Amino acid sequence: MKQSILFSKTRKEVSAESESINHQLLVRGGFVNQLMSGVYTYLPMGFKVLKKIENIVREEMEEIGGQEILMPALQPKENWEITGRWDTMDDLFKFTSFYSKTDLAIGPTHEEVITPLAKHQIFSYKDLPKYIFQIQTKFRDEERAKSGLLRGREFLMKDLYSFNTSEKELDDYYDGMIKVYNKIYKQIGIADKTYLTFAPGGTFSKYSHEFQTETPAGEDIIYLCKKCKVAINKEIIDEQKVCPECESSDLKEIKSIEVGNIFKLKTKFSQSFNLTYTDKNGKSHLIQMGCYGLGISRLMGTIVEVCHDERGIIWPKEVAPFDIHLISISEDEKSNKIYEILKKEGFDVLFDDREESAGSKFKDADLIGIPTRIVISSKLAKDKKVEIKKRSESDPEIINEEDLIKYLKRS
Amino acid sequence: MKQSILFSKTRKEVSAESESINHQLLVRGGFVNQLMSGVYTYLPMGFKVLKKIENIVREEMEEIGGQEILMPALQPKENWEITGRWDTMDDLFKFTSFYSKTDLAIGPTHEEVITPLAKHQIFSYKDLPKYIFQIQTKFRDEERAKSGLLRGREFLMKDLYSFNTSEKELDDYYDGMIKVYNKIYKQIGIADKTYLTFAPGGTFSKYSHEFQTETPAGEDIIYLCKKCKVAINKEIIDEQKVCPECESSDLKEIKSIEVGNIFKLKTKFSQSFNLTYTDKNGKSHLIQMGCYGLGISRLMGTIVEVCHDERGIIWPKEVAPFDIHLISISEDEKSNKIYEILKKEGFDVLFDDREESAGSKFKDADLIGIPTRIVISSKLAKDKKVEIKKRSESDPEIINEEDLIKYLKRS
Repeated sequence: MKQSILFSKTRKEVSAESESINHQLLVRGGFVNQLMSGVYTYLPMGFKVLKKIENIVREEMEEIGGQEILMPALQPKENWEITGRWDTMDDLFKFTSFYSKTDLAIGPTHEEVITPLAKHQIFSYKDLPKYIFQIQTKFRDEERAKSGLLRGREFLMKDLYSFNTSEKELDDYYDGMIKVYNKIYKQIGIADKTYLTFAPGGTFSKYSHEFQTETPAGEDIIYLCKKCKVAINKEIIDEQKVCPECESSDLKEIKSIEVGNIFKLKTKFSQSFNLTYTDKNGKSHLIQMGCYGLGISRLMGTIVEVCHDERGIIWPKEVAPFDIHLISISEDEKSNKIYEILKKEGFDVLFDDREESAGSKFKDADLIGIPTRIVISSKLAKDKKVEIKKRSESDPEIINEEDLIKYLKRS
Repeated sequence: MKQSILFSKTRKEVSAESESINHQLLVRGGFVNQLMSGVYTYLPMGFKVLKKIENIVREEMEEIGGQEILMPALQPKENWEITGRWDTMDDLFKFTSFYSKTDLAIGPTHEEVITPLAKHQIFSYKDLPKYIFQIQTKFRDEERAKSGLLRGREFLMKDLYSFNTSEKELDDYYDGMIKVYNKIYKQIGIADKTYLTFAPGGTFSKYSHEFQTETPAGEDIIYLCKKCKVAINKEIIDEQKVCPECESSDLKEIKSIEVGNIFKLKTKFSQSFNLTYTDKNGKSHLIQMGCYGLGISRLMGTIVEVCHDERGIIWPKEVAPFDIHLISISEDEKSNKIYEILKKEGFDVLFDDREESAGSKFKDADLIGIPTRIVISSKLAKDKKVEIKKRSESDPEIINEEDLIKYLKRS
């Protein structure tokens, strides 16, 4: 894509109220635009990153047996009264339809939709197990929506719900999901700083698990076990001064952001909605449920918090908006030729064909953070050379123009 | 996918209140589940159809220069006060945030977001033209949400907004979009019954255009010109008794559903938000805007209204949930082998491996409406034959097992 026609401009400054790094860099880089506190528009490059994360997550969910559906944001009050959460959930956006006079919510989660829905699809043990997920926009009336994409009032989320006949089956699927989540964090480049974390389990389970990414921008406090690299959320450290995984008490307090949360619901919701199955002998049982959340837009913000330097974002390859940032320094004809060749070879290229100074183009390239930068200048072109530089490294390389494709395919 | 593990079951009956054909067939076929009036969950097969329509539309929008973004559903009251629509738009869901005490809406349209957003991205004539679209969930407090997916309170929509320097440029893009819309309706199989329709233009334009699909389920009345096959919406027929396209007055009244609406906004919204650009001489002008809507979920409902018979849905190939419905009649081992071969050859197959009677499987196949049905029965297997039938045709063919792939690739 030519940068001159891209519907997003880099910006030198953002308003003073923007305290978080991900907000600053994403707004300045032209990835998002803030409509109001905690509510963002994803501009073309931000949309591309979001879709890349979404597709990585989708593929892994399908791999672990997930079937994708799409549930509505609008939810009726009655369902929330059945679970008793209509009045207890503070951050639920609630309102009344002018025409139907019914009370509605826009959903921050979907247990109140998926559980009654499953009653239409699951009847006997033959219909189990089932693993159902969606990637969908959620809403939360956040008290403090001030951390860019980390804590939004509107956000994109993957939520998967598991339905099993037994606790043993639920446990096995849950353990499998821990592995899958770790695989996702590895693919998107934050695995080194992301820790499985023991968290409160609610009324039905001893523990739930979070995945927490270490960052000064995080609003959570966790205690990381230096021995096994598993963490404990502050909310349970008071009861328990050792890591449940390895019994070690050598813990380090760190700030972190929750990038995933998995929960054994067991029969909490199947009981509320009387979601049952019949076994081989025709006997009825409550279904064992689990839920597995992962914030897609929050992950985008977290990646920026973890992967940046003082000049801008350093996108991990798998989620970068483009593969290559091609920069023309007064060599538009030659650059255009190379742009066409790169596209033909299958690379996704942002081509800076704007009438800007070299310095300004380099500054923007660092801010935007595409993994590989290629510079075509008159001086280099004379010797049939191009400059190539990784965003994550400090020094460029000068290579022969004719070796460019081979070089890119190797790296 | 094996039908035995699919998270959607066909249903024999739906509740009496469901008057529309698309609701009945989509619920009975296991494509959607109604949460409340005008609000649906898309089950795995419904989700697949929705995504196929979405991808056809996305490709065409990119082809005509569209850049994809994602705007929020939550919108602040202030923006709607600037355009004067906060109090005049009846179907706007409005509410107050408990924490921030601010008034919010969830958007039925996005002029109030995209116009101020464009002020951050468009400054001079060099930044124009721009064509920006999204495929996003919209909300409308509908008085009568009773036509299945045709009139929802929550629905998926594509909306593109054009930004041009001159009316001439806007006119040209608008004319190009008419061609693109017709191409989309052709691809999804409803072109024969879909007519370009003159509709009221509002304060700024003489006409807008709708695309109306003829169906008894439609709640609109249009007058179709028998000569040029262009229609006029009832709302303007009273002023004008001839077709504006060909001046003919030989018109036929038909019922229809609006499946697209394009509108020259001209400077209506750029004036409200003072969205301007500077020309070559540094002089400032208001930007010419257009908007181009297309309901993705409504299209899904419309396809069902147009493409069905008394036994069920007849999906057009391009939007069908699967390519092939493979049915095993007590020949599970052989069917499974053929299922694996079909998948390997790149076909998307729904394999009915359930323990059901042949009659019940055939009934479900007709209801679900996958374009090609293949039956493997003991009787046929003995002679190394398979039965193949198009959903749109009445008679099956018996062919040699070994000719199956060749046959499918040819058809």
